[in-house]
Amino acid sequence: MERIRTTEVQAHVSDRVCVQGWLHAVRRLGGVNFLVLRDGWGTVQAVTEQEADLAPITQAELQTESLIALEGLVVASAQAPGGVELQQLQITVLTPVREALPVLISKREVKAQLPVLLDHAVVTNRHPGRRALFRLSAGVMAAFRGYLNSVGFTEIQTPKVVASATESGANVFAIDYFGRPAYLAQSPQFYKQIMVGVFERVFEVGPVFRAEPHATARHLSEYVSMDLELGFIENHFTVMGVLRNLLDHIFTTLQSQYSAELALVGANLPTVPATIPHLHFSEAKELVYQLHGVDERNEPDLSPQEERWLGAWAQSEHGSDFLFVTGYPMSKRPFYTHPDPARPAYSNSFDLLFRGIELVTGGQRLHRYEDYLAALAARKLSTEPFVGYLEAFRYGMPPHGGLAIGLERLLMQLTGATNLRETTLFPRDLSRLTP
Amino acid sequence: MERIRTTEVQAHVSDRVCVQGWLHAVRRLGGVNFLVLRDGWGTVQAVTEQEADLAPITQAELQTESLIALEGLVVASAQAPGGVELQQLQITVLTPVREALPVLISKREVKAQLPVLLDHAVVTNRHPGRRALFRLSAGVMAAFRGYLNSVGFTEIQTPKVVASATESGANVFAIDYFGRPAYLAQSPQFYKQIMVGVFERVFEVGPVFRAEPHATARHLSEYVSMDLELGFIENHFTVMGVLRNLLDHIFTTLQSQYSAELALVGANLPTVPATIPHLHFSEAKELVYQLHGVDERNEPDLSPQEERWLGAWAQSEHGSDFLFVTGYPMSKRPFYTHPDPARPAYSNSFDLLFRGIELVTGGQRLHRYEDYLAALAARKLSTEPFVGYLEAFRYGMPPHGGLAIGLERLLMQLTGATNLRETTLFPRDLSRLTP
Repeated sequence: MERIRTTEVQAHVSDRVCVQGWLHAVRRLGGVNFLVLRDGWGTVQAVTEQEADLAPITQAELQTESLIALEGLVVASAQAPGGVELQQLQITVLTPVREALPVLISKREVKAQLPVLLDHAVVTNRHPGRRALFRLSAGVMAAFRGYLNSVGFTEIQTPKVVASATESGANVFAIDYFGRPAYLAQSPQFYKQIMVGVFERVFEVGPVFRAEPHATARHLSEYVSMDLELGFIENHFTVMGVLRNLLDHIFTTLQSQYSAELALVGANLPTVPATIPHLHFSEAKELVYQLHGVDERNEPDLSPQEERWLGAWAQSEHGSDFLFVTGYPMSKRPFYTHPDPARPAYSNSFDLLFRGIELVTGGQRLHRYEDYLAALAARKLSTEPFVGYLEAFRYGMPPHGGLAIGLERLLMQLTGATNLRETTLFPRDLSRLTP
Repeated sequence: MERIRTTEVQAHVSDRVCVQGWLHAVRRLGGVNFLVLRDGWGTVQAVTEQEADLAPITQAELQTESLIALEGLVVASAQAPGGVELQQLQITVLTPVREALPVLISKREVKAQLPVLLDHAVVTNRHPGRRALFRLSAGVMAAFRGYLNSVGFTEIQTPKVVASATESGANVFAIDYFGRPAYLAQSPQFYKQIMVGVFERVFEVGPVFRAEPHATARHLSEYVSMDLELGFIENHFTVMGVLRNLLDHIFTTLQSQYSAELALVGANLPTVPATIPHLHFSEAKELVYQLHGVDERNEPDLSPQEERWLGAWAQSEHGSDFLFVTGYPMSKRPFYTHPDPARPAYSNSFDLLFRGIELVTGGQRLHRYEDYLAALAARKLSTEPFVGYLEAFRYGMPPHGGLAIGLERLLMQLTGATNLRETTLFPRDLSRLTP
């Protein structure tokens, strides 16, 4: 009999069908045995009062996660999840599992401390809630690409092994490249800018690498960055406009196409305002001081606490989950950052706070060759490691800018997770390199 | 005046429009000056007999690749490329370029030796033909994902920094991971198999890393691998069936959506036969011996020459650009390879030859935990580096298999390029690490 998916069972009431998948759960209530079978798409319940029906499982003392083929009659049942269950069962074992799982994945929640959850991510990611999370991750990437393709962006794949560190010498992983030093790209920054010279509008979804020397809840040493860069902008506000529409498309797509997954992970989708409120960095500092009496107005960056306060302010003042902070001081931004022509100590850059945490960083970049030479000289950096990059500007670049969104951080904020490791498929940090 | 794209000019005959982009070419024929402006989408020609119109360019002695805004009247012209040209010009310089290009990119072909082309890839990739090539690359990735999404696959992004080499200890790049050894993933093999346990059907498009110690025309140390893996297969022929339909979708999509790019790069699209011919490895060896008298029947692999001969045979015998060679000897395949149950010295694996060169490698994998323990023991490999990977099999995996397609190699065969470096955006090899 041809296999159908668990999600197709509902359409087969009164038919005999075959499903195949993992033995997700076995429960015995009085004389009734409930089995739950999980396949790549969902789960289905099967019921029998005949102990003999379960013989292929019980005689070999098989454990959950054994692979089985299950034939049965589809019966409507108001009590059953999904409104149907299988009866009159015939079970065939495909791959037996003889050991009990290290972490139970058949309950509504995975009851395990985070390190245990991550140690056994190979298995815990099979949990329907965890799986829904990573299905959402795929949905976010698809929506990101879909929107950008629709407005003229071209996808690129740029090298991850590079001759020089992108933004600074710090926090990069060194590689032995045939006896020479090389590095893992901290971001596709240089290459996406170069490619504006080719396609004007480019995006990339791919891994980036940061040798983060600290263990924090919101940094990892490898993550998925969704990058874009576009030419012929007026300033960073052009980029912010693209971002607003992009986020709107992503969340609208999730809402319409991933409702089951959103429900499973308990995600709370934001509405993207027609205009996302924005504050200049200096206004943001002043606001924090006025509201909370904390005077960090001379600090060149926002602390996590300040970000949370500003996020709360955007929520209460504008009913917005999002807040742009623009014009970060040049002193804290990389050399390719474009200054604000009117206030050169500040930059044409922005961060987007989502529920009080930085989700996106972006801005306008320098585009004149002379400006690059001056910026490198001002920072006492040699042009030599940047020759290839600088060639793009030497031979003509338009005003341009872009941004980067951390995929896992977006999911973290969407689901209310408190640690980035929870929303990363197989996290990498100071101490974790497996699985 | 609002900017329009060069590709939109045709729709504006008799209007005055503004285009912005790179000064692609300037040609003077008699008293007539031709300018070509290139933007992210195409090019448009402008014509003037008034030297004064060109003053913003000529007075500052600006070079091609300067960024300009060009206002003009759209006039139908049978001689002009695209059937229209701009007249009554007004030029504004946006970003001046004062140096001549290292490599001319305004001719039909880039006339440069490969090393020069690659040294200046930042600029040479702006050439319309080069650009079309990488637009096709984006098209291939989009079609790959589109087809797989339509048949129930989920996209994943797996770690590139790993604790152990995927297939063997050879040819991996070592990283200093916070003082511990780690490696760059040679492929997402282990993770895509693990993820079959979560989603059943998964794919990934991302970088893979091979420390290739030889300089060849068809190997690089970093490339883009399009990977897929699926569960509940019968054997490798199930995977080959998915591949056939996937390739058909990719080429059909390129045909319908990328005709301009295909023409620009002179690509010769294949037709994918309803059934791709296949030969068992032992038959392939025998055939080469019969046809060419070369007896390499005891060699456990196919040489490039044998692949070319077999490709030619598939073309002449079956009119097919494609040929599956199945059943490669187990001795040359990695430990996770599933043997042919009927002839255990041969594997349930395949290579797909495209025009006589290996484009895709795939096959069925082991899925029983005991089989993995036995396979590792037979190769005298410790289980210790593979504990995370093995956990997937310990806790239940269905019969499964998959494949990997090299993106740049597909483009190489499609365009008839003779060196993989020609179809790679920014190649990495033994001696090349920039740009």
